[in-house]
Amino acid sequence: MTITLPGPTLGVVGGGQLGRMMGEAVAPLGVEVVVLDPTPGCPASPVVSDQIVGGFDDADAIHELASRVDALTFEIELADPDLMAEAAAEHDVPVHPDPDTLRTIQDKLVQKEALVDAGIPVPEFVAVATAEGLERVVEEFGGVMLKAREGGYDGRGNVPVDDPADAADALDEVGGNAMAEEFLDFEREIAVMGLKGADGETRTYPVTETIHREEILRESVAPARTDDAVVAEAESVARDVLDVLDGRGVYGIELFETRDGDVLVNEIAPRPHNSGHWTIEGARTSQFENHVRAVLGWPLGPTDLVAPAVTANVLGDTEGTRPATMSGVDDVLAASGADLHWYGKDDVRPLRKMGHLTATLEAGGDDGAADWDAGDRGAADRDALLSRARDLRDGLTFRDA
Amino acid sequence: MTITLPGPTLGVVGGGQLGRMMGEAVAPLGVEVVVLDPTPGCPASPVVSDQIVGGFDDADAIHELASRVDALTFEIELADPDLMAEAAAEHDVPVHPDPDTLRTIQDKLVQKEALVDAGIPVPEFVAVATAEGLERVVEEFGGVMLKAREGGYDGRGNVPVDDPADAADALDEVGGNAMAEEFLDFEREIAVMGLKGADGETRTYPVTETIHREEILRESVAPARTDDAVVAEAESVARDVLDVLDGRGVYGIELFETRDGDVLVNEIAPRPHNSGHWTIEGARTSQFENHVRAVLGWPLGPTDLVAPAVTANVLGDTEGTRPATMSGVDDVLAASGADLHWYGKDDVRPLRKMGHLTATLEAGGDDGAADWDAGDRGAADRDALLSRARDLRDGLTFRDA
Repeated sequence: MTITLPGPTLGVVGGGQLGRMMGEAVAPLGVEVVVLDPTPGCPASPVVSDQIVGGFDDADAIHELASRVDALTFEIELADPDLMAEAAAEHDVPVHPDPDTLRTIQDKLVQKEALVDAGIPVPEFVAVATAEGLERVVEEFGGVMLKAREGGYDGRGNVPVDDPADAADALDEVGGNAMAEEFLDFEREIAVMGLKGADGETRTYPVTETIHREEILRESVAPARTDDAVVAEAESVARDVLDVLDGRGVYGIELFETRDGDVLVNEIAPRPHNSGHWTIEGARTSQFENHVRAVLGWPLGPTDLVAPAVTANVLGDTEGTRPATMSGVDDVLAASGADLHWYGKDDVRPLRKMGHLTATLEAGGDDGAADWDAGDRGAADRDALLSRARDLRDGLTFRDA
Repeated sequence: MTITLPGPTLGVVGGGQLGRMMGEAVAPLGVEVVVLDPTPGCPASPVVSDQIVGGFDDADAIHELASRVDALTFEIELADPDLMAEAAAEHDVPVHPDPDTLRTIQDKLVQKEALVDAGIPVPEFVAVATAEGLERVVEEFGGVMLKAREGGYDGRGNVPVDDPADAADALDEVGGNAMAEEFLDFEREIAVMGLKGADGETRTYPVTETIHREEILRESVAPARTDDAVVAEAESVARDVLDVLDGRGVYGIELFETRDGDVLVNEIAPRPHNSGHWTIEGARTSQFENHVRAVLGWPLGPTDLVAPAVTANVLGDTEGTRPATMSGVDDVLAASGADLHWYGKDDVRPLRKMGHLTATLEAGGDDGAADWDAGDRGAADRDALLSRARDLRDGLTFRDA
């Protein structure tokens, strides 16, 4: 293709922090961004060209978006695949990833079945529709993660169940239409951000270690502190997953590393993912820039590591919902080798993702090169980096001083 | 101070590429930006919260800007210091750098006299008001750079004169009110981006080598390919210059390195400067982020080198003015270790600054560290980096294919 600037205008369904970081990433490349989001003044709105205020299932709004842009993508799984496909066809603009892929991924049961069909290793799982069914599964597996088939995010819709007596309540909590997955006694969780570009090109970012608590990602460590064999297996599984998915873009591939060093797929997100936020500072090209490059069919940027990096999420620490004012920022700004990202959300809620910070390994010598020992995969350095990121993050609060 | 997010709103007089890159730099920090610029849809407008359309000398517009923001700065020397000071006082917002500093810098003769008063080395210069006076100066100096005292930029307003017979024409060209500076037989031009923060804190970025042609900056090489002694002297002179200037912010300090290794001040800009664009990729904190941090009185970010970097300006290569469409972008996007910055200007004109690209030294080994030999200051690496940046830049064109 022949690329000229000023570049195309990209339409993004969803204007949360992922849309915001897409906009931040591609402004220097001359790509204008228009987002569609139901919340006026959504996080992305101050940094993109325009926002269309409308719901993710608002056909008129999606058609208006498609009519104003040169390509269409989404940053939230709640985007409606049928409406996007229809609007894209009517206005003759490409939409990536493929709405079919989104449809498959939206239903966690269908997603897992597609992976099994392709021979990709996943934990044991079964569909669950009744409390009685769930009781039997819990007895058989000795404990499961119950997951809403659709609509869950950031831990919502995921309920651990290890006592059959809790089955009915758990099923109520996830809303009835569910799947149950065996509890894995995993060694650690890891993730690979995978990229599909034009002409079938695929790339992966260095394997990331992800640390969750209460089903919510707290920190990501890149590269993962694990064996080379596990890294190789994770990359291989990620490439197999990319082969199953249709459409260009970045995919967040969440994995389990078992005690035996096996790698199983947990979940896939057809978009930039929290476990790849470290790529903004830690990789040659961020997941956000590469997602947009991929969607536009542009050449992909290099995914190499620049420096080991740890991202710590900044979650709402208030008891309830209130206007967001975050204090403790001074120390993060004064720290060397730490970059803060504010998501622009007006209200804070308990455990809501409000921002993140990324600590990168600092320059060691006169030459400005990160002084990192690759030989032992520098695990000790990353331990220290993780502590540092946590300390800085823990100084940020939305509570009254 | 106690810093909270969402952050303050910053008002910027001027919405060109410097305002645009300020906006791009501080969006992740939760700082909203409003620019004032006479051109609707100015380069900064797509990436900042809002633009007020108005002239740099439009009192109402500047008052409106001051009324809507928490702090005021400027990105162009054409900003009116009196109006900014008055509006800032009336609306009780800080303005940085100090309008007095801008006033001093706006008149190149007054600027040079202030430097001489402070004992800072500069080339020989004299005020010139008549063709007869200029003839005498040319005879005495054996060749001068004639400079308009006010309003020149990107080479406009600078005319070399080495024949007394050309004096009258040259003076006409610069508009009459001028100064003449001895032609220096310099070894190279260099620049230091200097920072003044809260409580008198100052920092400098690594010394940059600047390469001009027809009085317009073409490439910047960081760090400069020069002796350690010259680097030390340049840093010392830059710190002396920062002591003379009032108000927080980034200052671009352009210097001559003479054949004898002396360092003289050429010109000062009270704002982010083209010779510091490499800091976006090549330094831990960009000049744009640090300018805003300084203006807001926030802690300054580290100015250390991340990797050697070369910035090549992309200038208009058309014969006349026309709508801008830049081709040749594919190769730059496909290149590893090169980042493109588009300024969002609708029209291209001969030699107009349309964008830039920065090539950074690429990761050498598994550890992702830049493989740069600091021992010999890696001059050979930077020669190659400069060639690479030029080759990539020279593939970009606004001419018809």
